Amino acid sequence: MPETMLAVVKPEARAGVELRDVAIPSFGPSDVLVRVKVASVCGTDLHIYNWDAWAQRRIHPPLIPGHEFCGEVAEVGREVTAVKPFDFVSAEMHVACGECFQCRIGEAHICQNVKIIGVDSNGAFAEYVVIPESNIWKLDPAIPKEYASILDPLGNAVHTVLAGPIAGRTVAVTGCGPIGLFSIAVARASGATQVFAVEVNEHRRKLAEKMKADLTLNPAIDDVKARILEATDGVGADVVLEMSGHPDGIRTAFDVVRRGGRLSLLGLTSKPISLNFSEDIIFKGITIQGINGRRMYETWYQMTALLKAGKLELHPVITDRLAMRDFDKGMARLKTGEASKILLYPNGVK
Amino acid sequence: MPETMLAVVKPEARAGVELRDVAIPSFGPSDVLVRVKVASVCGTDLHIYNWDAWAQRRIHPPLIPGHEFCGEVAEVGREVTAVKPFDFVSAEMHVACGECFQCRIGEAHICQNVKIIGVDSNGAFAEYVVIPESNIWKLDPAIPKEYASILDPLGNAVHTVLAGPIAGRTVAVTGCGPIGLFSIAVARASGATQVFAVEVNEHRRKLAEKMKADLTLNPAIDDVKARILEATDGVGADVVLEMSGHPDGIRTAFDVVRRGGRLSLLGLTSKPISLNFSEDIIFKGITIQGINGRRMYETWYQMTALLKAGKLELHPVITDRLAMRDFDKGMARLKTGEASKILLYPNGVK
Amino acid sequence: MPETMLAVVKPEARAGVELRDVAIPSFGPSDVLVRVKVASVCGTDLHIYNWDAWAQRRIHPPLIPGHEFCGEVAEVGREVTAVKPFDFVSAEMHVACGECFQCRIGEAHICQNVKIIGVDSNGAFAEYVVIPESNIWKLDPAIPKEYASILDPLGNAVHTVLAGPIAGRTVAVTGCGPIGLFSIAVARASGATQVFAVEVNEHRRKLAEKMKADLTLNPAIDDVKARILEATDGVGADVVLEMSGHPDGIRTAFDVVRRGGRLSLLGLTSKPISLNFSEDIIFKGITIQGINGRRMYETWYQMTALLKAGKLELHPVITDRLAMRDFDKGMARLKTGEASKILLYPNGVK
Amino acid sequence: MPETMLAVVKPEARAGVELRDVAIPSFGPSDVLVRVKVASVCGTDLHIYNWDAWAQRRIHPPLIPGHEFCGEVAEVGREVTAVKPFDFVSAEMHVACGECFQCRIGEAHICQNVKIIGVDSNGAFAEYVVIPESNIWKLDPAIPKEYASILDPLGNAVHTVLAGPIAGRTVAVTGCGPIGLFSIAVARASGATQVFAVEVNEHRRKLAEKMKADLTLNPAIDDVKARILEATDGVGADVVLEMSGHPDGIRTAFDVVRRGGRLSLLGLTSKPISLNFSEDIIFKGITIQGINGRRMYETWYQMTALLKAGKLELHPVITDRLAMRDFDKGMARLKTGEASKILLYPNGVK
Repeated sequence: MPETMLAVVKPEARAGVELRDVAIPSFGPSDVLVRVKVASVCGTDLHIYNWDAWAQRRIHPPLIPGHEFCGEVAEVGREVTAVKPFDFVSAEMHVACGECFQCRIGEAHICQNVKIIGVDSNGAFAEYVVIPESNIWKLDPAIPKEYASILDPLGNAVHTVLAGPIAGRTVAVTGCGPIGLFSIAVARASGATQVFAVEVNEHRRKLAEKMKADLTLNPAIDDVKARILEATDGVGADVVLEMSGHPDGIRTAFDVVRRGGRLSLLGLTSKPISLNFSEDIIFKGITIQGINGRRMYETWYQMTALLKAGKLELHPVITDRLAMRDFDKGMARLKTGEASKILLYPNGVK
Repeated sequence: MPETMLAVVKPEARAGVELRDVAIPSFGPSDVLVRVKVASVCGTDLHIYNWDAWAQRRIHPPLIPGHEFCGEVAEVGREVTAVKPFDFVSAEMHVACGECFQCRIGEAHICQNVKIIGVDSNGAFAEYVVIPESNIWKLDPAIPKEYASILDPLGNAVHTVLAGPIAGRTVAVTGCGPIGLFSIAVARASGATQVFAVEVNEHRRKLAEKMKADLTLNPAIDDVKARILEATDGVGADVVLEMSGHPDGIRTAFDVVRRGGRLSLLGLTSKPISLNFSEDIIFKGITIQGINGRRMYETWYQMTALLKAGKLELHPVITDRLAMRDFDKGMARLKTGEASKILLYPNGVK
Repeated sequence: MPETMLAVVKPEARAGVELRDVAIPSFGPSDVLVRVKVASVCGTDLHIYNWDAWAQRRIHPPLIPGHEFCGEVAEVGREVTAVKPFDFVSAEMHVACGECFQCRIGEAHICQNVKIIGVDSNGAFAEYVVIPESNIWKLDPAIPKEYASILDPLGNAVHTVLAGPIAGRTVAVTGCGPIGLFSIAVARASGATQVFAVEVNEHRRKLAEKMKADLTLNPAIDDVKARILEATDGVGADVVLEMSGHPDGIRTAFDVVRRGGRLSLLGLTSKPISLNFSEDIIFKGITIQGINGRRMYETWYQMTALLKAGKLELHPVITDRLAMRDFDKGMARLKTGEASKILLYPNGVK
Repeated sequence: MPETMLAVVKPEARAGVELRDVAIPSFGPSDVLVRVKVASVCGTDLHIYNWDAWAQRRIHPPLIPGHEFCGEVAEVGREVTAVKPFDFVSAEMHVACGECFQCRIGEAHICQNVKIIGVDSNGAFAEYVVIPESNIWKLDPAIPKEYASILDPLGNAVHTVLAGPIAGRTVAVTGCGPIGLFSIAVARASGATQVFAVEVNEHRRKLAEKMKADLTLNPAIDDVKARILEATDGVGADVVLEMSGHPDGIRTAFDVVRRGGRLSLLGLTSKPISLNFSEDIIFKGITIQGINGRRMYETWYQMTALLKAGKLELHPVITDRLAMRDFDKGMARLKTGEASKILLYPNGVK
């Protein structure tokens, strides 16, 4: 066991990160030290990198970011029984308090006191990361490492898609970032009869097509509402998954959801959204769901089962593979709008 | 059978109504002619009376308004089998098309082609009204006429309250017009453990107290969020029923609903509503429901059963009883903000 | 239009049928006369043919049986608006009363007064059949006629599979007659991660394999419970669909459903079934559903959408195609246990 | 702190118990030592006392039984943070493993590896009992001690009643032991419009009347099915709660549940139950639920909220109050069939 490790560090309250050699973290009796094999980059990491308004409020440097990864158990605390060294694992990075009302009724994904590893404490953009035993998710070695590193955002997609009935229904996805793209795959695997992908960025639309969306629409050109009504005999989409967080995407989501349909919101917004409640919600009798994180641990079981059954083909979403040392390159790629999910390898791309 | 009847008529596109003697309406083979015993006044009727922007768009005079009533069957079309003369009845005034997707899957309350009697065709502010047999609701004579005349708005309340689990849960009602007040009674009868009533109008707050709300709050004075958090061990209300349609009421609704809670929207808005989707909906993981009309006819069964069982004490809501000839007086009473539900008697108050 | 037609007739209270030329049926103002293109044979038809105890109680000869079919509209009653001659149609053969409690709350599939065309009145084993307009299901011409003729039993499967969440779950099907086989396809299309087929008949097991069950088990040889526990990490099947109606199949169903799982019963029984309620139901906390018919008309929409999307490959189930004149041959084939779904062509196989 | 305590002990594998002075139990770092204020007697305790077949299989003497109680925290292990000495508490006595599939998806009440304190390890029929911190339920001092001692069976009733919609529905309870009687109160408080109590024992029927059942029926005399159909316009009961575990009670439950209704089973059976699946379950399209324990900890929140709101009047069920030393008398009272819930006071009745 070495004494230091490579880590991506946000050293202080400003844009950018530094690559540093830092001490391998210590861990408690119920913690697990994991050797990171592959980590992946979330939009949140770009916010932290850019040091935008959200990051300035939420992040307390110094911090090692990163909350999507897979790895191998290196060492375990003395009370740990669920895993042992060399087990292949990922983790739920939302650490719930276990004591609030929501935790006690099985809704830990909306814990009142949640802390996120990689946001509120040191995360996975390093050679090693510490995870509480309760949050470790042990993986079947049959699951490819690349998929194992993206279970956090895939879990968001699974949580959103399966938050209501989906088989035999039409689904519109507004916004085709990685979670939107994953949602296309999950919806198709779950019996959606048509999946409509709405996305203004050309690169993402091409990925939506690769994910086998039945109809990919560009709101800058297409009359999205008219096209979806046409494809659904004038009814509208049974289920809409809002993944953009953008006012235009949200407007489209309300426009295309059918009377009595489900509209599940996951894309985080940075501006206030204005709605006509009477026309948009009440007369249509729709149900709107706020979706946060992943259900602990029902979503993880569902996701693992879908992956093991070979129901999800996710490779198109993984557009870039970089050595973790090239973190800055990854950020630059994201800013071009050409990259979707970027994988980082602590020991170089293999 | 007389040849003419008294009716409240909106004669043309301007404010006000006229009292006229008009022909008793003719009816088809599957229609029922009902002798109105008691009708009641909805906020919608005030919009029509005032000839506001909504009314100008929706209403095509001449029209007899009125969509809340009870009465006695006078005559039936030759194909009618469900009722006979002298039966005591009310009616669902939303006439669904029966052929659209929503109608065919049991969601007729959000029919794509709904027509409302009293809004889109002649209604119940008259001595007689014509109702299709399919929409007639036969009543047990044990149900008091006063309650029988307000089943339409009571049904809104029952539909809203019972749109999710309620027993053992805390409930906040924002806006205490008649439907909000009814909701207090229905929530209490259905096992809500605390009902919080939020209302700025003093008369309505007093009625909320008479309806036995556990805590009645005045947002002009009280810190509503703090008070509800205090009463719920810091959790917030499990269920919020938004009955005001006012931006302040809606703001309160989002503020007080707990993480993972249900927010059911019934109050119609006249202005755009602005929200912070991330904070208000997504991180909290709430579910928002648009509630329209009454489920056909599940809500009617539930409502009738609750009334027959004596579970609902609604008298405080009925503040005024007028002869139908005094319709203008009723409108004036509503404008003062002192009246809640006003009953109209075609043949004078008894 | 001819005056007579070929029909399969149960002429009186005894085993067997006769092929007869009978008058083309008359129809009322809201009825549709359909020229049958393809009909298919249900186990019920074999009961009627054999004149077993159930048939003796339920059937009142003379009767033309047959309740699975597709065809072309020949003529329509004067009040019919939904279809016109030459439209391609099938039909829901459960004619609900429309007036009972269940019908009025959207549960017409369990109507108190249901009549079944082909059981309680003349059905589709003829060149023409009369269907009430309300029960006609208009079909997209893109749907193959062979599939269009089996929508009734396919609808049973869709109703059963989609009576609860299915994506990301393991499913066991006990009994692989046609509806069991269809269920395998529907479960797979709806995101089931493993489908276990349990069937003692070798021909049916082969069909289950062709339907791509993940694991096909023979209870005469295999330790079904042990195999399913092994395949599910000791948990058991999340969802069990009981399609056999046989005591052994039902026993297996209770044995393999996991704690908290769903057990949906469709297979009709001819003998009393004995259970240990404490061990089989209560301690395991399972949910058992009785499934009857198809939801009107939600199941029909779901089924049509799945078919149009190409999600269901059903051809292996169709083992025999016969001229309707060869009805006796079809019955003989069923008795061998080698046939699954048999199609009948009034004008000869094409 | 004394060194010994009074305890009711099943000393070895035979009928009866002994009263003994035993050492106050030691406890671990995450355990809570509770001074028992009031305990109450469950039917299970009578099985253990009588040493019947079930007890012989399940119980390993020596054992202190007792799993219903309230008390005051005496001491806490060094890692305990949720409670402190003198807190008023009760406890969930099902200790779930926390690691099985059911525990990890929020279904700990059907944990694969559950252990029950008072059945599998020493329980509450003593002056002190040890409870893991995770299972302690802290109580508002406003809740009466008598009610606090019966939360375990009251929780069974709350879990059963609230396992589906109840407001506006009719409810039949078959079997009026303590949990059946509690269910009457919970159903009424939750908006049931009629509650039918079916019970053959006269003492229990009188208690059902005191609990304000709308109709109490004696199956030895009354035509239960006819009476319930009559009271429900021929429909049957929307919800049936089977609390007897007796073949006759179960037969009645299936007879009176309406088409599409819910039948929740809690009463444990000692004999096989025979059903006609086609007629009893499938054609009626009913849903059957096995109910076990209490949801952790949603049921506890619901129950506490209902009690604090004063929605439940339970005193009629408490028929006997005894000093714990008089345990044998309690058993004798249960055998007469006259007693319902018996409270035991370690330090004498106060």
